[in-house]
Amino acid sequence: MYTEERLKELVAQIRPLDEEAMAAARARQDTLAKPLGSLGRLEELSIQLAGIAGKMGNRVDKRRLIVLAADNGVVEEGISITPQVVTLNQTINLTRAKTGASTLAKHFGDEIQVVDVGVNAEIHCPEVVNRKIAYGTRNLAKEDAMTRQQAIQGLLTGIELAKQAKDEGIEILGTGEMGIGNTTTSSALLAVFLNATVEEVTGRGGGMTDEGFQHKKEVIAQAIADRAPDRNDPIDVLAKLGGFDIAAMAGVFLGAAIYRLPVVIDGFISVVAALTAARICPLARDYMIPSHASYERGYRLAMEALELRPMLLLDMRLGEGSGCPIAFQVVSAGCAILNDMATFAEAEINDQYIQDFKEQEGSF
Amino acid sequence: MYTEERLKELVAQIRPLDEEAMAAARARQDTLAKPLGSLGRLEELSIQLAGIAGKMGNRVDKRRLIVLAADNGVVEEGISITPQVVTLNQTINLTRAKTGASTLAKHFGDEIQVVDVGVNAEIHCPEVVNRKIAYGTRNLAKEDAMTRQQAIQGLLTGIELAKQAKDEGIEILGTGEMGIGNTTTSSALLAVFLNATVEEVTGRGGGMTDEGFQHKKEVIAQAIADRAPDRNDPIDVLAKLGGFDIAAMAGVFLGAAIYRLPVVIDGFISVVAALTAARICPLARDYMIPSHASYERGYRLAMEALELRPMLLLDMRLGEGSGCPIAFQVVSAGCAILNDMATFAEAEINDQYIQDFKEQEGSF
Repeated sequence: MYTEERLKELVAQIRPLDEEAMAAARARQDTLAKPLGSLGRLEELSIQLAGIAGKMGNRVDKRRLIVLAADNGVVEEGISITPQVVTLNQTINLTRAKTGASTLAKHFGDEIQVVDVGVNAEIHCPEVVNRKIAYGTRNLAKEDAMTRQQAIQGLLTGIELAKQAKDEGIEILGTGEMGIGNTTTSSALLAVFLNATVEEVTGRGGGMTDEGFQHKKEVIAQAIADRAPDRNDPIDVLAKLGGFDIAAMAGVFLGAAIYRLPVVIDGFISVVAALTAARICPLARDYMIPSHASYERGYRLAMEALELRPMLLLDMRLGEGSGCPIAFQVVSAGCAILNDMATFAEAEINDQYIQDFKEQEGSF
Repeated sequence: MYTEERLKELVAQIRPLDEEAMAAARARQDTLAKPLGSLGRLEELSIQLAGIAGKMGNRVDKRRLIVLAADNGVVEEGISITPQVVTLNQTINLTRAKTGASTLAKHFGDEIQVVDVGVNAEIHCPEVVNRKIAYGTRNLAKEDAMTRQQAIQGLLTGIELAKQAKDEGIEILGTGEMGIGNTTTSSALLAVFLNATVEEVTGRGGGMTDEGFQHKKEVIAQAIADRAPDRNDPIDVLAKLGGFDIAAMAGVFLGAAIYRLPVVIDGFISVVAALTAARICPLARDYMIPSHASYERGYRLAMEALELRPMLLLDMRLGEGSGCPIAFQVVSAGCAILNDMATFAEAEINDQYIQDFKEQEGSF
């Protein structure tokens, strides 16, 4: 059942990363035939994965991108120039390797799981997993976007999706979304969580007129004032200003931490969901892996709040989880270094060189 | 024969990118089912590859990392705390998937070609391609590092390696190096090419003492003053202050442009070689693809001079070409988008949505 008590029980199972396994991975990295630390974040990824799995020898051969699709009642306010039915169309196209993220997932051999958590239409497509909470949220400019119960259902749905992945042998998760209007909900959540101005966290998008952009910011600011969520109760913030996609994605981040799977953040909406999860349980942050630097305003602030830095500078702003397939490849590179590279001893370089390698850095 | 005339003949064959093919690729990108430009640099990569190949439908399934290994006479001055014999050891280890770059190349299924262009030892390892120019350069603190003839031989050797790759069906090249002392030669070249101070372009490396770092900068500054290369004659600069690894790597960049192959830049030494190539023939720049942002000081200045930006933020500083295997995967993602993604028409979204998609940006 989707109760707050059940959510609390599950979240209470989240443990810190395994320090012992991380120390072992770090120690092995320091014996590999390279200047200390010279593979930078590839080394850090291998250490993080050891902390998540509680062991070395990790692989990310079985990768799944979970895309949460939902509609947002706030589109009534004209905050997006894209019609709502695009959510439905692209949700179906995501299952057919026709969109950006699904093309990349297919190219790299990643599974994609498209989940309807609140699209405003019946979806007659068996490849779309039906976990619909409602036919879109309500209009947050006029009333709470969802009930507290719906927010909890969204979070628990995401947790269940992470559990399913773990049960099916998935080794790394990625997160994506499809939902017209979800930069508006994301900006609203971020403004509240960071106590930031709407100006600081709201992006224009390229096609929007000055007037449209101004209107979008006014809608967000007014909604925050009217809904008056309790900043210290992340579920209240999520319910009043969020979307089903963000609720379920935050659940995937929590579930990854509960079931100990690494989970990749995509762009702006994804990082707001990650921040929502971290506000519910700060330990969840340690299971997250960044991907690309989104162009959307607010992304940087959310990443700073999570103390994370992007790994990819690709000027992407598509959403759908499109940054995850490339990030998966970077993580796999980190695994390969720890699993496959020779130690100084195995490389048969004598002790004198080991000493020299360890003392120097960057000079070859 | 390795004559300056032959070099000039070959370089004169370099042509600009194919504008018609690029326009066709750009036009197709703009019909794909995504907001205009929302896949950022993945789109740009696909357009660049079309310009290089003169057609769309490009793939990078056959990838080769060329690693140029050579010793530098300037190590006599104590500018590196790593002993010279490490060049020999790691050159051999590179062929055995034991080093960082070769582990990553094997992991991603990239070929690696290790070429001795000037290691200061006989190499009894059949996997190392013997194109030795001499047993290391001379000490640039005391005399010109190489003769003009040797610099030309290095450049032509690199061009030949690019031609061999093209003849063997390789679709993308990466560049790497192994050579103790080569951050010193790279900083010297960069200071002259950019008319920058030694301070601006010289990195410490982590293991070096304050005294050692000061000494390294003094050696470079004095060498530039004593060798007095002609800034407007890149071959003169290369001969007096460079290394065989950099000469041959610059040749690979020129060869990639001559034989129309995309070529990936690795870190600091690689980007200095790229700049050397671009000083010999500015058109060569358009065939280059950046990879990761090196931590070595000077990297950023060299990239700015080439008007290029890194794609990966991984805090790496290993060299060997270790940034190329991951960059190859990013390029392959760019190819997949152009080759495999559906157009708006193929995605069966009606005309109204096409219009809307094209006008908006970033809002889903």
